[in-house]
Amino acid sequence: MNAYYTDEVHGHHEYLELGGFPLRSGYTLPDAKLAYKTQGTLNAAKDNAVLFPHMYSGTSASMEMYVGEGRPLDPSKYFVIFPGQFGGGFSSSPSNTPPPFDRGQFPPLAIADDVIAQHRLVTEHFGISRLHAVLGWSMGAQQTYEWAVRFPDMVPRAAVFAGNARTPVHNQIFIDTHTELMISDPAFRGGFYADGDDLTLALKRHAVAFSLMGLSAAFWRDELWRDLGFVSSDDFRQGFLRAYFAPMDPNNLLAQAAKWRGGDIGHHAGGDVAAALGKITATFFVSSFSEDLFFPPEDHDADCAHIPNGRRRPIETPMGHFGMFALREADQAAVDAVIAEMLAS
Amino acid sequence: MNAYYTDEVHGHHEYLELGGFPLRSGYTLPDAKLAYKTQGTLNAAKDNAVLFPHMYSGTSASMEMYVGEGRPLDPSKYFVIFPGQFGGGFSSSPSNTPPPFDRGQFPPLAIADDVIAQHRLVTEHFGISRLHAVLGWSMGAQQTYEWAVRFPDMVPRAAVFAGNARTPVHNQIFIDTHTELMISDPAFRGGFYADGDDLTLALKRHAVAFSLMGLSAAFWRDELWRDLGFVSSDDFRQGFLRAYFAPMDPNNLLAQAAKWRGGDIGHHAGGDVAAALGKITATFFVSSFSEDLFFPPEDHDADCAHIPNGRRRPIETPMGHFGMFALREADQAAVDAVIAEMLAS
Repeated sequence: MNAYYTDEVHGHHEYLELGGFPLRSGYTLPDAKLAYKTQGTLNAAKDNAVLFPHMYSGTSASMEMYVGEGRPLDPSKYFVIFPGQFGGGFSSSPSNTPPPFDRGQFPPLAIADDVIAQHRLVTEHFGISRLHAVLGWSMGAQQTYEWAVRFPDMVPRAAVFAGNARTPVHNQIFIDTHTELMISDPAFRGGFYADGDDLTLALKRHAVAFSLMGLSAAFWRDELWRDLGFVSSDDFRQGFLRAYFAPMDPNNLLAQAAKWRGGDIGHHAGGDVAAALGKITATFFVSSFSEDLFFPPEDHDADCAHIPNGRRRPIETPMGHFGMFALREADQAAVDAVIAEMLAS
Repeated sequence: MNAYYTDEVHGHHEYLELGGFPLRSGYTLPDAKLAYKTQGTLNAAKDNAVLFPHMYSGTSASMEMYVGEGRPLDPSKYFVIFPGQFGGGFSSSPSNTPPPFDRGQFPPLAIADDVIAQHRLVTEHFGISRLHAVLGWSMGAQQTYEWAVRFPDMVPRAAVFAGNARTPVHNQIFIDTHTELMISDPAFRGGFYADGDDLTLALKRHAVAFSLMGLSAAFWRDELWRDLGFVSSDDFRQGFLRAYFAPMDPNNLLAQAAKWRGGDIGHHAGGDVAAALGKITATFFVSSFSEDLFFPPEDHDADCAHIPNGRRRPIETPMGHFGMFALREADQAAVDAVIAEMLAS
């Protein structure tokens, strides 16, 4: 058991038992479970729930930083649900599933698998028939798209940050890069390592790719790591990027990465992304980060153009894709402003 | 002996024997040699020589595409010298140097080593006291900067394309990425492989990083590989990017990569890049490619601002750093235009 994926590190989680859960890939995951956290209280009318799925490498705790008294996502007003991802380490994942679906033989995942499990949580467990909103960053954006297209009657409003309806080819090549780096560790052994602590090299190499693409050229040029309390670029790479990924389980990350790579809302319309986006009835906010090397603004323009009630809200920041980590107050304020506008729309 | 680094593949080379060559790293390379090719004829006044060093992974043949009748670099007018790089496979390199400096124990290189060897070729071998011009792309740009600062009286005019006076930190992280991918092949064995043909995995992984960064997000978004005769993005990645690197020697590439990473003209002025650039007396053209993920235009602005006779000539292209491969006629024409202006200045 990896000590990272515990309540000690990430706070108290609840679990929905899903039983044998049919995955899009054709496998049935036995005794599947969906982990989640919540903040706030579901009101009597059950109309104040906001769903906030997380990004690659995150957990249900990752987006809690956007909830707070006086913030747009005020827990005195909204009931915020933070679902875990399959592969995220708390929900069913390579690291916590027994044979024959453990480690390197965990079945392939799709964004729709997460959303279908979340739909059961929202409807069957909480008895909610309509969410107030869905929002997410990166892979959280992919899940938001899936919600808005698959369950349009349940999603009156939504916001995506730095994520696309279909994973762009250039972004797939980035995923190939960090995947190759991860699996290159001889100790990886096709995923059949006994102890994740042996995978230090895999996680160190994987972090190099995120150093390359997670922030912008301007971040490094202007030495913005100084503002974050680091004394050199190497210090930041070691103290933030490597340290962030170091405790994680490689198989979990790879399960998420493959799901991310396959993200394509077009599966709702025979591969036609524009037609699938046309099914969205939500008032739908599309935000990008100006220097994002994962998901450039241009790809958000294209997505938004096909959404009937799409509203384009680009955000300027030198932090690139990591703009949503709230490492700078200005970024957090810009994201909060879009969330506030979306919640009130 | 790697069959790639032969005259059969790259045309006839000449060699200057350098004897024991002292490297900046403190090693003396025994029986060092500098490979080169030329086009055109050195005139009696010896004032028509143009030096055109090559980029990472290239050879003396790589830039020959910029020479031709009716082109700015017309061989009926100019004597064009294409020096090889140390580590390039023809000049002294890990792949062609005997023990104790072979393979994984080849000594560290600096851009200045190449330029000092080239200076001997130009002055001692050809008897040239002043070049007409120096120009280069990427690592060729690094050598051009070294020439212009180290030997200002010999360089009246110069042009750099997509390369900086100091390797930016973000670019160093890119080098770390492809280096990690290369050395991750278990057959690499710290560079002490017997046969480069065993390093297919290393070269395949290394090519992933160049797929990610060599071209632009727009190249993949707009499927510009179609214009190059490929039928899918995977077809291009396999047929162009992997195929290009596949025959090369990993130790050679790594020797060049480390040299590239350490590029810093500031060594001429106690680490002060601006002061070093202030020593340039050449009319110096600084070109960048608009979508370059290796060396963004902004870093060229900063370099040019410190060069007394600097002339900024940004080039618009969706081909990113590979704009200089002349894959599109428009790119070749844009580069030729800068070369023409520089040669006539």
